[in-house]
Amino acid sequence: MPDRKDDVYGDHISHKFNDELMELKTQFLEMGGAVESQVERAVKALIDSDGELAEQVRLKDKEVDKQEVALDEEATLIIARRQPTARDLRLVISVIKMVADLERVGDEAKKIAKLAIKLSEEGQAPRGYVEVRHIAGHVQSMLHDALDAFTRLDSEQALRIMKEDKRVDEEYQAAARTLLTFMMEDTRNISRCMSVMWVLRALERVGDHACNIAENVIFMVEGEDVRHTSIEEAERVVGG
Amino acid sequence: MPDRKDDVYGDHISHKFNDELMELKTQFLEMGGAVESQVERAVKALIDSDGELAEQVRLKDKEVDKQEVALDEEATLIIARRQPTARDLRLVISVIKMVADLERVGDEAKKIAKLAIKLSEEGQAPRGYVEVRHIAGHVQSMLHDALDAFTRLDSEQALRIMKEDKRVDEEYQAAARTLLTFMMEDTRNISRCMSVMWVLRALERVGDHACNIAENVIFMVEGEDVRHTSIEEAERVVGG
Repeated sequence: MPDRKDDVYGDHISHKFNDELMELKTQFLEMGGAVESQVERAVKALIDSDGELAEQVRLKDKEVDKQEVALDEEATLIIARRQPTARDLRLVISVIKMVADLERVGDEAKKIAKLAIKLSEEGQAPRGYVEVRHIAGHVQSMLHDALDAFTRLDSEQALRIMKEDKRVDEEYQAAARTLLTFMMEDTRNISRCMSVMWVLRALERVGDHACNIAENVIFMVEGEDVRHTSIEEAERVVGG
Repeated sequence: MPDRKDDVYGDHISHKFNDELMELKTQFLEMGGAVESQVERAVKALIDSDGELAEQVRLKDKEVDKQEVALDEEATLIIARRQPTARDLRLVISVIKMVADLERVGDEAKKIAKLAIKLSEEGQAPRGYVEVRHIAGHVQSMLHDALDAFTRLDSEQALRIMKEDKRVDEEYQAAARTLLTFMMEDTRNISRCMSVMWVLRALERVGDHACNIAENVIFMVEGEDVRHTSIEEAERVVGG
């Protein structure tokens, strides 16, 4: 017969540890939700020429920064207190890395908000908003899917996001060429088109960070680092 | 009289642990040196219009990526095996974060190398190289000083780097305005000036990453997170 005391004690420890890991995941997803909303609102502020909304996004970035600091502290405490190994350690270290990505997505949203303010003050909608809308939609769904892949620890979905990143890069290159043409057509377009160019660049970076999160999900689930491998190699890791 | 056996055993354990931490530091600084050289060579390739050197930088980035993966693995192993706490744990976690910064500096060097190839193929030195040279010198010394601050665990030097970052941002803004003027003067300048603009942006990002490393050094030494605080608050942390 097993020693009940030991069982209860063991159970208690592991319960607490599990609770802490769950709490870390929950906090991470909360930060993810906040960052998703920042990107969405920044793009909306730009397209609607809504300076007030853009200002809200700028201010809200401070809260995202606080979430980063809190999550880092929580993750470090878990390592110090629980001394996780194997899969649990991979989860905690991945969270530390992905939190940095989320914070940078927040920074990109803030940049877009600042450009939205600049553009709304200058009045008159410039060219390139069709492209912004298109790429924004694409990277927003990548970010959403990456957070979803983390929630469900779904490495196949993560792999799909890695593939999407290549397409975003192509879309970004095409959009940048279009804007360059507008600039050459009329020098009065240059300053405003440059601002739109920076928005596109910020969105492309959001796609990169979503891709980083996806790579971390694969690392957590499969235990293999696919950051600098080919898509074929990542497919082998996820499929095998 | 102390138990000699225990002493020797304890010493042995702590020696091995110390060796591992030293090895992690050494590997990190090696990666830092490689990345510094990548930035330096990418900028030289651009200014000398040296397509061959730029190609070498591009290829070399794969080695930097490998260093990132190896360092991450080593740091994770140390956590799993040695279960460090307090200062040691801060060191290992900071290394994990700073490695990501170094890898991104490597990516920026690769971007500059690609633009150097593009610009050298188009022939004729464009405007903006004075600005590139100036900002490159500035961020290269920031990166060097950040790695030096890490080596000597010097939080005061780290604080100086945080202050430099603001100056780089101002220099970057001024350079971007100058380039915008060139573009408006003559539409034939636009495409080449855009490439130079991306180089400036990449260099400004290198400064950001140097600043991130500096913030981590302060965290390691002082145990306080100064990432999203004011310079005054960082001064208090380092000075107190």
